[in-house]
Amino acid sequence: MRKVVITDVPRTDLEVVDALAPYGVATVHEALGRTGYLGTGLRPIQRGARIAGNAVTALCAPGDNLMIHAAVEQCTPGDLLVVTTTSPCTDGMFGELLATSLRSRGVRGLVIEAGVRDVAELNEMGFPVWSAAVSAQGTVKATAGAVNVPVVVGGGIVRPGDVILADDDGVMCVPRADAAAGVRTAEARMEREEATRAALAGGQLGLDRYDLRPLLRDQGVEYLTAAEYAEGRH
Amino acid sequence: MRKVVITDVPRTDLEVVDALAPYGVATVHEALGRTGYLGTGLRPIQRGARIAGNAVTALCAPGDNLMIHAAVEQCTPGDLLVVTTTSPCTDGMFGELLATSLRSRGVRGLVIEAGVRDVAELNEMGFPVWSAAVSAQGTVKATAGAVNVPVVVGGGIVRPGDVILADDDGVMCVPRADAAAGVRTAEARMEREEATRAALAGGQLGLDRYDLRPLLRDQGVEYLTAAEYAEGRH
Amino acid sequence: MRKVVITDVPRTDLEVVDALAPYGVATVHEALGRTGYLGTGLRPIQRGARIAGNAVTALCAPGDNLMIHAAVEQCTPGDLLVVTTTSPCTDGMFGELLATSLRSRGVRGLVIEAGVRDVAELNEMGFPVWSAAVSAQGTVKATAGAVNVPVVVGGGIVRPGDVILADDDGVMCVPRADAAAGVRTAEARMEREEATRAALAGGQLGLDRYDLRPLLRDQGVEYLTAAEYAEGRH
Amino acid sequence: MRKVVITDVPRTDLEVVDALAPYGVATVHEALGRTGYLGTGLRPIQRGARIAGNAVTALCAPGDNLMIHAAVEQCTPGDLLVVTTTSPCTDGMFGELLATSLRSRGVRGLVIEAGVRDVAELNEMGFPVWSAAVSAQGTVKATAGAVNVPVVVGGGIVRPGDVILADDDGVMCVPRADAAAGVRTAEARMEREEATRAALAGGQLGLDRYDLRPLLRDQGVEYLTAAEYAEGRH
Amino acid sequence: MRKVVITDVPRTDLEVVDALAPYGVATVHEALGRTGYLGTGLRPIQRGARIAGNAVTALCAPGDNLMIHAAVEQCTPGDLLVVTTTSPCTDGMFGELLATSLRSRGVRGLVIEAGVRDVAELNEMGFPVWSAAVSAQGTVKATAGAVNVPVVVGGGIVRPGDVILADDDGVMCVPRADAAAGVRTAEARMEREEATRAALAGGQLGLDRYDLRPLLRDQGVEYLTAAEYAEGRH
Amino acid sequence: MRKVVITDVPRTDLEVVDALAPYGVATVHEALGRTGYLGTGLRPIQRGARIAGNAVTALCAPGDNLMIHAAVEQCTPGDLLVVTTTSPCTDGMFGELLATSLRSRGVRGLVIEAGVRDVAELNEMGFPVWSAAVSAQGTVKATAGAVNVPVVVGGGIVRPGDVILADDDGVMCVPRADAAAGVRTAEARMEREEATRAALAGGQLGLDRYDLRPLLRDQGVEYLTAAEYAEGRH
Repeated sequence: MRKVVITDVPRTDLEVVDALAPYGVATVHEALGRTGYLGTGLRPIQRGARIAGNAVTALCAPGDNLMIHAAVEQCTPGDLLVVTTTSPCTDGMFGELLATSLRSRGVRGLVIEAGVRDVAELNEMGFPVWSAAVSAQGTVKATAGAVNVPVVVGGGIVRPGDVILADDDGVMCVPRADAAAGVRTAEARMEREEATRAALAGGQLGLDRYDLRPLLRDQGVEYLTAAEYAEGRH
Repeated sequence: MRKVVITDVPRTDLEVVDALAPYGVATVHEALGRTGYLGTGLRPIQRGARIAGNAVTALCAPGDNLMIHAAVEQCTPGDLLVVTTTSPCTDGMFGELLATSLRSRGVRGLVIEAGVRDVAELNEMGFPVWSAAVSAQGTVKATAGAVNVPVVVGGGIVRPGDVILADDDGVMCVPRADAAAGVRTAEARMEREEATRAALAGGQLGLDRYDLRPLLRDQGVEYLTAAEYAEGRH
Repeated sequence: MRKVVITDVPRTDLEVVDALAPYGVATVHEALGRTGYLGTGLRPIQRGARIAGNAVTALCAPGDNLMIHAAVEQCTPGDLLVVTTTSPCTDGMFGELLATSLRSRGVRGLVIEAGVRDVAELNEMGFPVWSAAVSAQGTVKATAGAVNVPVVVGGGIVRPGDVILADDDGVMCVPRADAAAGVRTAEARMEREEATRAALAGGQLGLDRYDLRPLLRDQGVEYLTAAEYAEGRH
Repeated sequence: MRKVVITDVPRTDLEVVDALAPYGVATVHEALGRTGYLGTGLRPIQRGARIAGNAVTALCAPGDNLMIHAAVEQCTPGDLLVVTTTSPCTDGMFGELLATSLRSRGVRGLVIEAGVRDVAELNEMGFPVWSAAVSAQGTVKATAGAVNVPVVVGGGIVRPGDVILADDDGVMCVPRADAAAGVRTAEARMEREEATRAALAGGQLGLDRYDLRPLLRDQGVEYLTAAEYAEGRH
Repeated sequence: MRKVVITDVPRTDLEVVDALAPYGVATVHEALGRTGYLGTGLRPIQRGARIAGNAVTALCAPGDNLMIHAAVEQCTPGDLLVVTTTSPCTDGMFGELLATSLRSRGVRGLVIEAGVRDVAELNEMGFPVWSAAVSAQGTVKATAGAVNVPVVVGGGIVRPGDVILADDDGVMCVPRADAAAGVRTAEARMEREEATRAALAGGQLGLDRYDLRPLLRDQGVEYLTAAEYAEGRH
Repeated sequence: MRKVVITDVPRTDLEVVDALAPYGVATVHEALGRTGYLGTGLRPIQRGARIAGNAVTALCAPGDNLMIHAAVEQCTPGDLLVVTTTSPCTDGMFGELLATSLRSRGVRGLVIEAGVRDVAELNEMGFPVWSAAVSAQGTVKATAGAVNVPVVVGGGIVRPGDVILADDDGVMCVPRADAAAGVRTAEARMEREEATRAALAGGQLGLDRYDLRPLLRDQGVEYLTAAEYAEGRH
């Protein structure tokens, strides 16, 4: 791994970032053709948060949060820090003090594929965090890694300056180049969903709305009453 | 797998279903001779819900929610939809739109051995869900499965028309044939538990209430002071 | 395993126990030289609790809570019951009735490397529990184990009379001999942390506060602009 | 759970059982419409075995192998013992002595959703075992369960007298009623597979043999050269 | 996800690929600055294989191997097929027939972050496979994905035409641009390792060979006899 | 954690160590009252090895093998190195070079609750290893830990100078003080087992040999024919 800190990273326009946030992870993930989701392993420390920010990335050695400190310096308002390790690690690499530091720089939240601690304090601060673990286990500051290089988190790629979107459904990454178009597609999708919601609430079936009956027929699905089925098993 | 949708499934009398609900999963599980629990993998999306309903089952291909749509049509008021996949899957196969559809049909909740999404929206709607995962990852509608066949969920068997009971302790299945008797046994157990609770709150020990001292003696359990024990180790 | 119940176990002075509690797990873990944390597998049933108590230990057979009953008798006010099994087990070995019994003896909470049930009722009672699982699956009372012997829980050793400290960050064990000194070190650390918090909130960087720039330099970390880095990759 | 030992269980004709074995798990699973596979958690202790037998089932308490002893008595030549527990357990519930006992009764192998021990000795004996774990941890004989009731193993249902088929791909269950037809379908499938194997070995593509090109087209799959694709990303 | 099959992918020169293979995964991973390892989840089906090949990538829907068939057509001699799914999947997506097809095209092996089946037959064929699971569970061919796009496998990025190296230590990816230099660094490292091996075999300690004593001293490591240590604990 | 290397650790007499080895883990575990097993997570890299040695312990930071080098110096012939980390870690902390070093000092094998690499080379050398993972991922030498302090491995305590016994069933620890008596008990158990084996091979049932029929009766186990049972379910 090249030991490097990349500065002056181009970000996604904050207007675009802010426009993406309210659609939420599930909708934007669909709007992007079902891409960008960072897996089921990153869970919110708090409930009910929904945020978006520009990714600043930190790649750390396991059990070592040195590069988080180096990353803090690269953060600007509207950023969201994304941390991962070179091998799986559950240690509490981030806590209240680092959250204080990030907040003072205008950072909106943290996504970390490792552990965090000071959970009660983070909740009190209202600093939103998505992590792979909660652990009080402390870390050292001994081994260098990298800041603002592309990283793999939760099976997806995050590049510095991409938009990170996170809520109760988890975390996703919207590539910088796709963010503006993503807003438009998400909006269109949202409108369609609203119409669908009204139809379903009114009693229309998904089978009819999405025209699925022919598919069931083509696949040879039989409809039998429970009585017919029970008989057929004897 | 036979591709089939079974209709007109006999349900458990809703009066019986409604009588079971307030006892909760742990008590009814005991009342049924410690059977029917569907394992530790199904966790509530919300906290504090306690519901019961008649099982409508859907067996889906992994990453494919086609049969959930087919199952919705088979649901009637008082039902509870139970979904599983032919192999392990964490995808978000169910979200707010399907919940809207189920609610419009009088369905009481969802149990799914796979993932769900729109967690914030489901909480807002107050639609109770127990799932094996949370994931924004979308699914296709391409491959048929089955509706209202017996399924294995969380290591237990669920047959359509059985009673599903779910709360913060997880999910259990009460076979239709055992439900009415289950209400009576649960009630009897509840009464015994109330007496026990009062006794224990008053200071009686479980050792005495359940007459466990002879068992400890028969198994050769020694009582030693810490001092005697420390000495014996030298 | 020797089948034994150890009585008259020396405890840590409750004044010391009570002095440790408010510092929380993460801080005391640091104050003890990053030792004593009982791993990421023990999670709180409730949110926001922070307690400390003297360990009473119970070692059970899997699926068997006989020794929890034997342990209850050994509990005195200010204790905290610590339960583990001879092999991994998720069963609901503890519920509302045992909590009622413990509470009547002045016990402050439960740590169990197995499952618990009656989660809704435990929350209602306000009885704090940290467990490895939630399960309604019932257990038997058939096989003896040991009470108040040293046990391994979450990869750490707990001896009866040690201080158990638990909050949203998990659970830790402070050896009885180290508890009084631990209070002093935790206090000193807390004071230093307050100064650090103020500095970071004011905009000082961790890189400067902890003097990490020389370390980055010694490890050969390069600083490059995004433009320089992009160029270097071609 | 009803504490019961069921005797005189009807078995599948051994001629049918023996005819199924050589086709192997993957082929018979396909021949049965992709049903009956008992999941990825049951792995062979030895490599290269491929056997079939009539299921005798034992349902045990975790950490307790009493009912395995009760099940041995119900075994007859051509049987295969299937063991599971009422909750997850990794203990070494079965070893060389029980294998000796089973072998003396003509039992062909063991499938256990728990742990086994004496692995070196079992390999030496050539007694085939599929298990969920290897563990030296010993068990007690204290709590009754059931023998020859239907059990859920690896997410599938096994009824006494069903055919269990096991090889390096894992374990599957063929319902007694489907076994004879299964032989015929497996044979037909095997023949088709041989023709396919020859065609593929000769260079025909699966795309052509299974006529998949129209499907790719219908789904809108584009074919681009790497150069075109690279260009399209700018 | 863009549904696309990329053709005419530039490969790494086979001379370079073949030169990398004998160094093995651990050595080449070190030679590349400890990068490129694809995690502990990909295990060899056979023991003792050590191969290298050019990556052809296939991204499939879970439970669906349609794109493996599309990928086979893109394979040329010296390639190694790399398969992953859009969400975690254990199904047996690959077996003997696909191996026959790959072999007829000169493909050297398979890496799949999902399941495989026909393990006995694959071993007999001597076709090397690294997979995340073994499963007989069959898959459908219904949903399109992509061939020869960059994929994330085991937490690392694989681009078509990169070198995949695999042995008993797992799988790694060497970016095409780094492969030639990787051979030289690996060779240099191998030579150094041989000298080290001889020194260590002759009794020199790693502490001396790597000059670690000053580091231990700087970190404040004390050397105490067991007697002194025991005393210090009282 | 106290940073310390303990020297001159008293060992178990090698005659005793060598006498324990042939009994194997399962038998000695039983002989010690079912204690000392180090869990299902430590698996042999090779098959068929069965060894015993005196524990030398190393406690490392995750991703850092510095203290393994410090531990090597403390090893003497007949030792077995036991390594763990302060938090879970899968990195390849040990490989062929360290094995060469250990072998030159007469060390008999390695037990490591983390990863190893150079698996093919270790097998070729015939150096026996039990590990929690296989990983090519390299580690640093930057952070001090401890050598020859008591450690928790696989949920059990290992003290330097204890006997470590390992075979295909996993790993166990025999406390130094219990080792000599352990040999005698293991021998007695082995003799009993031989008699039991002969009896079971001759057709005696475990139900009779262990006198389990009264226990089944006391627990209320019913014996029913399949016909009676089927009838009773209607």
